[in-house]
Amino acid sequence: MGAFLEFRPLDEGSVIEYIKGVPALSSKLALGKNEEDITVKEVGDGNLNFVYIVSNNSVGYSFVIKQALPYIRCIGESWALTKERAYYESEALKEQGAITKGQHVPQVYHYDHTMSLIAMRYLEPPHIILRKGLIAGIEYPLLAHHMAHFMAHTLFFTSLLFRSTTHHKRHVAKFCGNAAMCRHTEQVVFSDPYQISQYNHWTSPYLDHDAEVLRHDNLLKLEVADLKSKFCERAQALIHGDLHTSSVMVTHDSTQVIDPEFAFYGPMGFDIGAFLGNLILAYFSQDGHVDQLNDRKSYKEWILKTIEDTWNLFYNKFIALWDEHKDGAGEAYLSAIYDNPELQLLVQKRYMTDLFHDSLGFGAAKMIRRIVGVAHVEDFESITDAVKRANCERRALDFAKTLLKDRKKFEGITEIVSAIQEF
Amino acid sequence: MGAFLEFRPLDEGSVIEYIKGVPALSSKLALGKNEEDITVKEVGDGNLNFVYIVSNNSVGYSFVIKQALPYIRCIGESWALTKERAYYESEALKEQGAITKGQHVPQVYHYDHTMSLIAMRYLEPPHIILRKGLIAGIEYPLLAHHMAHFMAHTLFFTSLLFRSTTHHKRHVAKFCGNAAMCRHTEQVVFSDPYQISQYNHWTSPYLDHDAEVLRHDNLLKLEVADLKSKFCERAQALIHGDLHTSSVMVTHDSTQVIDPEFAFYGPMGFDIGAFLGNLILAYFSQDGHVDQLNDRKSYKEWILKTIEDTWNLFYNKFIALWDEHKDGAGEAYLSAIYDNPELQLLVQKRYMTDLFHDSLGFGAAKMIRRIVGVAHVEDFESITDAVKRANCERRALDFAKTLLKDRKKFEGITEIVSAIQEF
Repeated sequence: MGAFLEFRPLDEGSVIEYIKGVPALSSKLALGKNEEDITVKEVGDGNLNFVYIVSNNSVGYSFVIKQALPYIRCIGESWALTKERAYYESEALKEQGAITKGQHVPQVYHYDHTMSLIAMRYLEPPHIILRKGLIAGIEYPLLAHHMAHFMAHTLFFTSLLFRSTTHHKRHVAKFCGNAAMCRHTEQVVFSDPYQISQYNHWTSPYLDHDAEVLRHDNLLKLEVADLKSKFCERAQALIHGDLHTSSVMVTHDSTQVIDPEFAFYGPMGFDIGAFLGNLILAYFSQDGHVDQLNDRKSYKEWILKTIEDTWNLFYNKFIALWDEHKDGAGEAYLSAIYDNPELQLLVQKRYMTDLFHDSLGFGAAKMIRRIVGVAHVEDFESITDAVKRANCERRALDFAKTLLKDRKKFEGITEIVSAIQEF
Repeated sequence: MGAFLEFRPLDEGSVIEYIKGVPALSSKLALGKNEEDITVKEVGDGNLNFVYIVSNNSVGYSFVIKQALPYIRCIGESWALTKERAYYESEALKEQGAITKGQHVPQVYHYDHTMSLIAMRYLEPPHIILRKGLIAGIEYPLLAHHMAHFMAHTLFFTSLLFRSTTHHKRHVAKFCGNAAMCRHTEQVVFSDPYQISQYNHWTSPYLDHDAEVLRHDNLLKLEVADLKSKFCERAQALIHGDLHTSSVMVTHDSTQVIDPEFAFYGPMGFDIGAFLGNLILAYFSQDGHVDQLNDRKSYKEWILKTIEDTWNLFYNKFIALWDEHKDGAGEAYLSAIYDNPELQLLVQKRYMTDLFHDSLGFGAAKMIRRIVGVAHVEDFESITDAVKRANCERRALDFAKTLLKDRKKFEGITEIVSAIQEF
């Protein structure tokens, strides 16, 4: 399949050498004819991997080469992380791409197991990372609709609502191989924020006390244990596993979900919560981005509306898929048993309420870890005034703690939006 | 490994021929010297497999050969069931044997994948199937202690309380291969009793109305869906998967758990519930076994005490294992986070309460399926008077329905025992 016989970390120079050995890629670039027009640019600004944009400027064609190295890029070689993650990323991209008919996931052109390398569609400008758009105060009118579509489809079609047990367990087994990535999430989301860890940091000294209080909050830790148990044990659907706002690239009309290297069969609420939780972080960061030109008031309203619309649209799309496929191969609710409209309503209501509470819990846990854990978010990091930043972060942290502990008291997304506004 | 090059169903005649080709087995029997002393007896009285006791009477040595055929024995070739189950049975026997130090599981001498065959220890007389002992009214003073030990150890040591995520997911993946057996359980426990199925039967016409009411009980079906979802999705520990009272062989001093061919990583409560639920069935069947010599009153008390002791001993043993290993490799509750006695109590209480409610729910579902589903229990089937049998079954069925719906209202096992007595 690949050009190199053994694993070798690429750099901007060796990328072209690699592509020359892969006909599927070199032909895409028309490589050989006008090699001087080929450019390679390393753009990996994520935490984990190296990403190269390879372009033939004379034919105006580009694609992306993403390579996983056996450690975490933003930490360095001291924090090992299996490069096998590239395999699960490529498998998830293919599956999510097929399910969403290529609408919201970049197409995979080539996967090289030896090199832990994926070649895929280049998401051309004006695509930017959603988080950067949120910091800049840009509204995306289709974002809620697209994300609801992505989540409803990828989660529904990989669950037992659509699949047989046999089919489901075969896929669950395959993604059990991505255990190292799950373990990483367990550490950074469910463990490190609640214990002393060399990688934790926060806006010090302002949040020192907050971080300390968190580590002694018994009731919070009791709830975190429940969420961690669901994350580790419940194979509900193929989840993206890291669906924050830097895993989404957007334009005015396009929404593309990238980087599913944490994909495995886990609880659906972990994806929904990641997305909603990061929108709530974006909301609480807005006060730090106010300037003379923009008081961010209407943008904060837009974020709240996007949170509300995302859940409501997700809910409706998910239920519509369920109704459409209720006589299909899915084995969770056989139509001969769940055979009357009243009962169908009852089971759907309970399913969606449980999913809502899961999403709130996971969303809150993801918020907390971004404030006192190892990896922070640019929404807050880009607020240069530390006092202002700490104030924004403290409000987000306090809201997340309430959300995590009291999540089962909330009955719908409008209550969440009100709670955010009133906080 | 084996004597035959391809799968072939054995019979009493060909068993010896098979053993001759397996040195590990023929040497055990001292085969070759006094072949005329070898006897083979088919004794499989279970629902699924063929079981042969092979003995050399001159040396007084016996072992068991168990072969899985690709269908369900008690139904016939019309209900296919993968013979791969023998692999999972042998893996589970080895794992449970190692965990319980051989105390409560027969030793495996030989496994032949091609033949779907296991040779294992013969559980010599006076070992009998526990269910037969319960029907005969025999008390087993160590039963609760032994079963609590078996369940606490096998469930604790295969859970994330003891294991790392990496270790856990590797084993989960392996047992995902036993999906066909899971699917069978899903059908007979969680589906068929609640729909019209050609295999369902009950003591007709007496229970016709009860079976019909069950199929229209929306609230019950709502709860059954929750349990089914846990069964299909929650990989909590390596469970036996079929831990009723015919999967246990007993003497006054010995308790041996057999037949784990349904083993997979599922919810712990499914095992605990299977055992307790079948004891409750035994309790409700006792009135059908009253005769002039024995009013069964004190035996019913003994069954209730065994139910209570089993849970309480299980609880204490499980918590003791947890405390003992809380600083070990288990990743569910890191000791640096769950770092004070008050919090440790809180998490253990919640964990055990959830497990208790799961056990009640699964136990109730297992009771129901034994009364209106495909496979019934000898406890009731041996009551020849159909009216008397139907009355016993109806009480058990009604109690199970209450237990399933109201399980979360019960806080402890004494409340369950009282509820049974007062029913």
